[in-house]
Amino acid sequence: MLFSTMLDNLRNNPPLVHNITNYVTVNDCANILLASGASPIMADDQDEVEEITSICSGLNINIGTLNKRTIESMFLAGLKSNELNHPTLLDPVGTGASKLRTETSNRLLKEIKFSVIKGNISEIKTLALGSLTTKGVDADDADSVTEQNLGKTILFANEYSKYTNSIIIITGAIDIVTDGSKAFVIKNGHSMMSRVTGTGCMLSALTTAFISANPNQLLEASAASVVLMGLAGEIAYEQVLKNKAGNSSYRNYIIDAVYNMTSEQLDKGAVYEIY
Amino acid sequence: MLFSTMLDNLRNNPPLVHNITNYVTVNDCANILLASGASPIMADDQDEVEEITSICSGLNINIGTLNKRTIESMFLAGLKSNELNHPTLLDPVGTGASKLRTETSNRLLKEIKFSVIKGNISEIKTLALGSLTTKGVDADDADSVTEQNLGKTILFANEYSKYTNSIIIITGAIDIVTDGSKAFVIKNGHSMMSRVTGTGCMLSALTTAFISANPNQLLEASAASVVLMGLAGEIAYEQVLKNKAGNSSYRNYIIDAVYNMTSEQLDKGAVYEIY
Amino acid sequence: MLFSTMLDNLRNNPPLVHNITNYVTVNDCANILLASGASPIMADDQDEVEEITSICSGLNINIGTLNKRTIESMFLAGLKSNELNHPTLLDPVGTGASKLRTETSNRLLKEIKFSVIKGNISEIKTLALGSLTTKGVDADDADSVTEQNLGKTILFANEYSKYTNSIIIITGAIDIVTDGSKAFVIKNGHSMMSRVTGTGCMLSALTTAFISANPNQLLEASAASVVLMGLAGEIAYEQVLKNKAGNSSYRNYIIDAVYNMTSEQLDKGAVYEIY
Repeated sequence: MLFSTMLDNLRNNPPLVHNITNYVTVNDCANILLASGASPIMADDQDEVEEITSICSGLNINIGTLNKRTIESMFLAGLKSNELNHPTLLDPVGTGASKLRTETSNRLLKEIKFSVIKGNISEIKTLALGSLTTKGVDADDADSVTEQNLGKTILFANEYSKYTNSIIIITGAIDIVTDGSKAFVIKNGHSMMSRVTGTGCMLSALTTAFISANPNQLLEASAASVVLMGLAGEIAYEQVLKNKAGNSSYRNYIIDAVYNMTSEQLDKGAVYEIY
Repeated sequence: MLFSTMLDNLRNNPPLVHNITNYVTVNDCANILLASGASPIMADDQDEVEEITSICSGLNINIGTLNKRTIESMFLAGLKSNELNHPTLLDPVGTGASKLRTETSNRLLKEIKFSVIKGNISEIKTLALGSLTTKGVDADDADSVTEQNLGKTILFANEYSKYTNSIIIITGAIDIVTDGSKAFVIKNGHSMMSRVTGTGCMLSALTTAFISANPNQLLEASAASVVLMGLAGEIAYEQVLKNKAGNSSYRNYIIDAVYNMTSEQLDKGAVYEIY
Repeated sequence: MLFSTMLDNLRNNPPLVHNITNYVTVNDCANILLASGASPIMADDQDEVEEITSICSGLNINIGTLNKRTIESMFLAGLKSNELNHPTLLDPVGTGASKLRTETSNRLLKEIKFSVIKGNISEIKTLALGSLTTKGVDADDADSVTEQNLGKTILFANEYSKYTNSIIIITGAIDIVTDGSKAFVIKNGHSMMSRVTGTGCMLSALTTAFISANPNQLLEASAASVVLMGLAGEIAYEQVLKNKAGNSSYRNYIIDAVYNMTSEQLDKGAVYEIY
């Protein structure tokens, strides 16, 4: 009932979402937004991003193929989005893989208030190391969230959430979504999703749609989005088995599953605990 | 027989089409061109666009993710295309959504002669408002073409076509294709097409192929392209129902349907009136 | 057994591959790398390409939608890749179609040592004409490799391979892979592959994964990649027939077939001769 309410709100009042994102997975991001019921707009030129952000309900910043030109646009759009109190999400793709990515993420976090920060455990750790000096970060060098390090990772995510005043989403075999005091631990999804490019980027776009449609329930909206994406991955995997398909068809089936997901399915299929 | 002739000409003498288009839907544009029988080339650097246009038979300019660098290339390619008398199409994506888009479209229209201008009703109205001061524009604020406003909208399209000396394509549930004196009103298509990113961009690429292959029948070629796209949407929708698919697979089915379309199917499936 | 060993090495020790490639087919390149077992990273900003190349095992440079900004990045990444002795591949897409492409390819070849150069016959001829003055080039103006010109084309490829000290891959209905003294002539594939955008780009990405995983067997690794791509095209074509599909679904089936390819299938399905 919780998650279905978030999805119903999105579908009853479809948000227009501004995406400044990478050129690798941008088409899939647009199609998953449309699948959810939302509408995408992609625009990254400095001369228009503020205006485009202004006509949208939320902003998705993804640094997947950042460059000097688009970095500047991220700042302009982010500041405008803050000014308008629009839900704003950061996907710090590849932070830690280059100085440019790490520094850009850190600068974005300094100058812009993000409603949600979404990354895998190593991206979020890299960000946190740039700002926090916490045992939570140093205590655990694991690269993925497992049952073994779950407790520690939730503590770390909570701490970083309080520090940034943002919802933190850490994705992996187990996903964590927390506002610093309440954490959803979500076990939907399928390991084959890591063999499709852009499942992370698609989740970021989708989550921006959810928080745009539910601006006063950022935590629940974010959790609903993570559940929806994971559940779509499960349903789509059945199609893969049935059709003896591979990862390219799997991509289509995942987006299709979001398109066809009913509110009832979403609540019924959700596998999660609250900490 | 009319539309099939246009398609036969394209397939018997496949044009190479130069596209300066957005990075969101560029892959689908390339694949739908290949599906039709044409060949795509995408090139947007100022140092090569004139040469690339010169080896092609037509030019498709789509401002979907415009930036300062590519805007300059649009002008260079457009002027060269005019010089060579190549069929040239403008898709003013999102005109009206930002000053940059509106001003770029208006400047393009001022400096370059377009064989075809293709947009939805609000994009075309925005363009017309920048140049025309006509009751046709002001008379009707509707955002889509319906049976109710069809008459007025045809009059508006005719007027704008005469003003620009271009074929005007207004897309929507009902599509209008006019050369100012004769208008095709086309009712092919399916509402689910609006849930796939890039159906408009794909139509622009496809139409550029049609006019490149039929440079002396711009109106009929444009209408054939609109019918083909709509009919492909209808055929593909049958596949969606059969496979309980969603919007991502629908995209593939649409392009597949263009690939498999026979000339006979095209004429037989066309639903249109001439005004 | 030869080809399966190459594939097994890739899957047992999956390389991370840096791609500086075009925005038209980049998503398919990422997905085919994931299908093979490898991991993709796309990054093209001058401020990070050297670092990104450093954390990867190989570099794929594809000039499909080159521009001044990314050309500079190609040089930076290529030089770094050479310094680290990483397998490095050049796909000179459209060389010959514009001065910018021809000159960029020639400059890249001058300053960077490529492990593999992969193109169709006209691209490779254009490159060779810029450096070789050989009867091999002038002797045959054909645009595709056929049984008739096969002998001559192998001689030309061998000569150009010796000149560049690179593996040369010439793709077409018949593919040639040579290190200058030994040539694989590969007859896998299906003509419908030319109706899908990016099959050439995907092969380049895939080949970079193969040579990254088999740095001491560049010739055999390259041949295995070409066989895998061709065989995937054959298997996928069966799916097209079965589902009465078109070129867009064919794209998905090709990537799916790479995903599902077993080592046994690869060896068994290979159609080739050694010269």
